Amino acid sequence: MHSFNELTTIFSERFNTTHFPEHPSTLYEPCNYFLSLGGKRIRPVLCLMANELFGDIHEDAFNAAIAIELFHNFSLIHDDIMDAASLRRSMQTIHTKYNQNTAILSGDVMLIRSYDYINKITAKYLPKVLHLFNKTAREVCEGQQLDMDFEQKNNVLLDEYIHMISLKTSVLIAASLEIGATIGGAGEANCNHIYEFGRNLGIAFQIQDDYLDAFGNADKVGKNIGGDIKQNKKTFLMLHALATANKQQLAIMQDLMLNNPPDKVAKMLAIYKDCNVDDWAIALKEKYLQIALQHLEDMALLSTRKKPLKDLAAFLIERDY
Amino acid sequence: MHSFNELTTIFSERFNTTHFPEHPSTLYEPCNYFLSLGGKRIRPVLCLMANELFGDIHEDAFNAAIAIELFHNFSLIHDDIMDAASLRRSMQTIHTKYNQNTAILSGDVMLIRSYDYINKITAKYLPKVLHLFNKTAREVCEGQQLDMDFEQKNNVLLDEYIHMISLKTSVLIAASLEIGATIGGAGEANCNHIYEFGRNLGIAFQIQDDYLDAFGNADKVGKNIGGDIKQNKKTFLMLHALATANKQQLAIMQDLMLNNPPDKVAKMLAIYKDCNVDDWAIALKEKYLQIALQHLEDMALLSTRKKPLKDLAAFLIERDY
Repeated sequence: MHSFNELTTIFSERFNTTHFPEHPSTLYEPCNYFLSLGGKRIRPVLCLMANELFGDIHEDAFNAAIAIELFHNFSLIHDDIMDAASLRRSMQTIHTKYNQNTAILSGDVMLIRSYDYINKITAKYLPKVLHLFNKTAREVCEGQQLDMDFEQKNNVLLDEYIHMISLKTSVLIAASLEIGATIGGAGEANCNHIYEFGRNLGIAFQIQDDYLDAFGNADKVGKNIGGDIKQNKKTFLMLHALATANKQQLAIMQDLMLNNPPDKVAKMLAIYKDCNVDDWAIALKEKYLQIALQHLEDMALLSTRKKPLKDLAAFLIERDY
Repeated sequence: MHSFNELTTIFSERFNTTHFPEHPSTLYEPCNYFLSLGGKRIRPVLCLMANELFGDIHEDAFNAAIAIELFHNFSLIHDDIMDAASLRRSMQTIHTKYNQNTAILSGDVMLIRSYDYINKITAKYLPKVLHLFNKTAREVCEGQQLDMDFEQKNNVLLDEYIHMISLKTSVLIAASLEIGATIGGAGEANCNHIYEFGRNLGIAFQIQDDYLDAFGNADKVGKNIGGDIKQNKKTFLMLHALATANKQQLAIMQDLMLNNPPDKVAKMLAIYKDCNVDDWAIALKEKYLQIALQHLEDMALLSTRKKPLKDLAAFLIERDY
């Protein structure tokens, strides 16, 4: 059995190769560029870890893992266009470095390429894996659409937000795990548990992400604090503050969002603290983490097998950077 | 056995239903809108015709046909963004009616949905069909990229242009036929022949299309003549004229393309005629049609079985509208 870090190295050795033909270079060079920006490769490694719950890692799990990482990168390329983001991992996004048409088409071809790796999976598991992969891909698109819709919407309920986050980020984490488990021969009950472990872990992770953006330590997080506040981004924290603030606090929040004064972040954080948004977020994160861990616990497997995933969950969620 | 028209009706009855869930409507309503614009449904019907070469139409052929038509519509949605086209079939394109982000994401989800229908295909044929579908999808992207590259390039050779057209339009026609034949139980030789029948027919069809845009009868073609010339579009005719014109003719052509005078179309057509571009195009179209028909002829099947496809080829290529 391997740790997350060991599997990251093993996966990277397989993944850091060319996934595309040479020509036309105007199409494939941008694809290679984007993949070269790197990333934590969390999703494919989760697929390998779930596969290893059931024995040695199967060759098919590597193919699924590569497909998942290509799919994830497709979604980032298109999201960057939609969000008009000029940088990703401190480097130019495709539509900035090349142009928008190239970014659309590079994303398309990366999505299509991911299915080539799915198609390498043993016939026995292919239909089930393809079904889950496809369902998840659709849900990720739905999540991105809801995220864009919410930008235009004044009253977003917490449940709606959790649904959106679940689609936009958690289902791919969940599916990565379930696909790995499926290829490992998992039965239906274990498949459901590992999926729900991933889905709830994904939600906890997003709450953590929102929390750190507001209350994290800038040096450790490695980026400026308050980015979400500056952009008026709807986050777990913002929604809870809007739902619990009194009239006076609400008026200040609305003024801050409209006029963007230089002390916007500090003033907003003061309201967050007055509304106990920080404690609330930590409790909510803990709730989803516990649901996730219970699903892992409920899997019919030796607990020693589950240790790497349990350690990883603790590491991902308890991190303060 | 059915004619092309009969199969068009049969396919439409199956296809004209909802392929998407209701929510989020901001994502799926644009998909339904785009499909409602209609189309000739040539590719899926070719899939059914190729399937019927080998016996009664198999349920899997309908699933493949639906996947092919969804894929084709995905490519149109994204091409419309890239070409900044505001109209398709006299109706607003998605990025015009809604917005660009919706068009990107609707296209993505339509592509993903096509794989759901591929996944319904019997396990026996699934890997082969998925492989061909995927390879073709990648090639269609490559064709679109080359088409955009050629817009920026001065000297495009005829062979390069044929390669681009083959990728952009012919391979999907070819793959539609081969997928239908595969599901019908065709062996490798018949698969190759039906693929090459489609690929060469596609090239002949594009030559015909370019020809009609310049030399067609406006009333019959149903659109203004000379649209390609007005846009300086690289077509079979333009490339041949550029390759065969003398210095004086070349100077006139370059002036017309640069300055777009009101009599641009008439003057360009005069040069096309002086260079015998019309006769050349008809001969080239005939060459590809004959190659296509020879491949159909070489299929190890009763010739009565082949009649609907032979009739269709004649109808598509000999049309003067």
